[in-house]
Amino acid sequence: MVIVERESGSVIVIDSSKHKFLGRVSGLGNLIHATVKFSPDARYAYVIARDATISKIDLLTLKLVKKVKAGLDSVGGVMTQDGKYIALSNYVPGEVRILDTDTLETVKQIPAVREYEDGKKIQSRVVGILDAPGNLLIFSLMDADGIWVVDGGKKDFPVIKKFWDVGKTPYDALITPDGRYYMAGFLNSNWMGLLDTWELKEVINILTQKDEQSASDVPLWKIPHLKGWAIAGDTAILPALKKEWALVYNSKTWEWLKNVPLEGTALYTVSGPDGRYIWVDLVGKNGDLIQVIDMKTQEVIKTLNPGKGATHPQFTPKGNSVYVSLMDEDKVVVYDAATFEKIKEFPAKRPSGIFSTERAHKFGM
Amino acid sequence: MVIVERESGSVIVIDSSKHKFLGRVSGLGNLIHATVKFSPDARYAYVIARDATISKIDLLTLKLVKKVKAGLDSVGGVMTQDGKYIALSNYVPGEVRILDTDTLETVKQIPAVREYEDGKKIQSRVVGILDAPGNLLIFSLMDADGIWVVDGGKKDFPVIKKFWDVGKTPYDALITPDGRYYMAGFLNSNWMGLLDTWELKEVINILTQKDEQSASDVPLWKIPHLKGWAIAGDTAILPALKKEWALVYNSKTWEWLKNVPLEGTALYTVSGPDGRYIWVDLVGKNGDLIQVIDMKTQEVIKTLNPGKGATHPQFTPKGNSVYVSLMDEDKVVVYDAATFEKIKEFPAKRPSGIFSTERAHKFGM
Repeated sequence: MVIVERESGSVIVIDSSKHKFLGRVSGLGNLIHATVKFSPDARYAYVIARDATISKIDLLTLKLVKKVKAGLDSVGGVMTQDGKYIALSNYVPGEVRILDTDTLETVKQIPAVREYEDGKKIQSRVVGILDAPGNLLIFSLMDADGIWVVDGGKKDFPVIKKFWDVGKTPYDALITPDGRYYMAGFLNSNWMGLLDTWELKEVINILTQKDEQSASDVPLWKIPHLKGWAIAGDTAILPALKKEWALVYNSKTWEWLKNVPLEGTALYTVSGPDGRYIWVDLVGKNGDLIQVIDMKTQEVIKTLNPGKGATHPQFTPKGNSVYVSLMDEDKVVVYDAATFEKIKEFPAKRPSGIFSTERAHKFGM
Repeated sequence: MVIVERESGSVIVIDSSKHKFLGRVSGLGNLIHATVKFSPDARYAYVIARDATISKIDLLTLKLVKKVKAGLDSVGGVMTQDGKYIALSNYVPGEVRILDTDTLETVKQIPAVREYEDGKKIQSRVVGILDAPGNLLIFSLMDADGIWVVDGGKKDFPVIKKFWDVGKTPYDALITPDGRYYMAGFLNSNWMGLLDTWELKEVINILTQKDEQSASDVPLWKIPHLKGWAIAGDTAILPALKKEWALVYNSKTWEWLKNVPLEGTALYTVSGPDGRYIWVDLVGKNGDLIQVIDMKTQEVIKTLNPGKGATHPQFTPKGNSVYVSLMDEDKVVVYDAATFEKIKEFPAKRPSGIFSTERAHKFGM
């Protein structure tokens, strides 16, 4: 597990097989909203800082191998399917920037520019960049309501598809674990956009609002995160925007199935590898709570109170343990996923994102 | 990739990110029908030899760390969900034997004995042992037509369920990638047995024969292998017994959907991580061929002739390359999964099974 310490610009590394602290690597830039990607062999971690500092860490030696600045403001990135490149979704400049994973040299910048019919041009922030089968890169243009597809296997990384006006203000996206469906969330549309990566023909709308969902909005404490971890068997369990429930969809037909009431708004809805239990991290009201949904009954079966600022649940690869950051208690805690007992804790400096190295082997992670 | 060299009792290890040969480890016992399991961190490979020699190899140093004899005749094994134990399916003696993964000491032997009403007792060969969520171990009794479930998280490893007369002569099993369904194949029944691991209530029959499947049998060249790799999206693609086709099922309702005609009988039907392409390894007639099924059309779209004794296709974790052993040409070849071009080959001594270390993170692998 590579765990981001947000204010101190460092990560700690824990052996999650034995729950053993291995060490800390510092000097990684501004890690407020940072993310970590892994080389295909899971040996190297690439930390993407908010200030677009990219640090390559050797997890065997815990040494910083290389560090570059690849933009001014970055919100994430992804490894290509073949592991040769890391692609950043930058806010400033609004672009996708592609780096060689060996050297961290920039090999391509793809400005996220939309030209309107009246001649107006907008360079958009980029969000929700994910890799897909066929060595594709798919991402959303937050300020230009677009979804683009890049062929990451071709020289020069051509943009092979541009879908426009798919929804207002995309904020993040997920790809299903098999890489088949790319799904974008929108801040200002009451649907999600779905792209079939086998076809790449159109972005269809999936409604997120039904009659019973018309309860009044609660504050948007934080923009929720979408990732493949929200897929559990035949269902997708997504955090609702400004609503105190999780949305359950059929992940094949993309029909809405139900809302699962929560004690606050969800930031992450994370399924274990068996698709049975979903750990939901609340934010804002009751932000210290983690609620667990059993997908057999599709109800909350457990409410945990791990401590202040509990966030970012991350399962171990086969799902036997769950790591949780306590951002406001300077701790990482570990739960037995079967018994819900706390089995271990580690000191950490304002920990946030927790990244298991087996993400190396998953699309969009 | 850890690749078994069957006659020489050795394995070779290849870095499949860079397609680079790393080394060879020898002295591992009789590796005819050997299998390899991995520790949760994928650092250690456990080679299970046919003569029940278990070798623990450190993949960082390529040193043999430990070697024990754990029976007389073993046909496979699996790592428990928590990674603490490796469980062997032994033929002689007919048992499940559980070893501590650190020390390789035997901590439990579970004789696979059936007592019939007339007082007769049979100690059965064990096949199809797989791990399931909840730290379960599930396996089949080849000579006693049973499926048993062991709680691997409890002291003493109690057998918590025994299902009898589920089908005649189980030969292997698979568990779906989410660990939900255990499915056993039978040599002498025209159905497969399905156990829902969330319920553990009954083994239901899934028919493998339909009217159009009544073509006459071809020889059983080798018993096909079942594993989670046969699941592709909503479908399961299984090798048919003594028929020149692959069986396609709906993996949710377990209805039979169609047969895909092949140029021989399938030994392995291996899906890439995107569930799009299935690489099928033929055995006996046309045994040098690999056929590729595109699940978009559910037809063979490519027939490859990699060379003599082509067997054991294994995808890299994100599916960009496929490794294939050429047992009768002393080579391992690597294909680009997108273009079907051969991109690399390695010398190897009568190679057979190819095991990617990311199996460490998958149920039943």
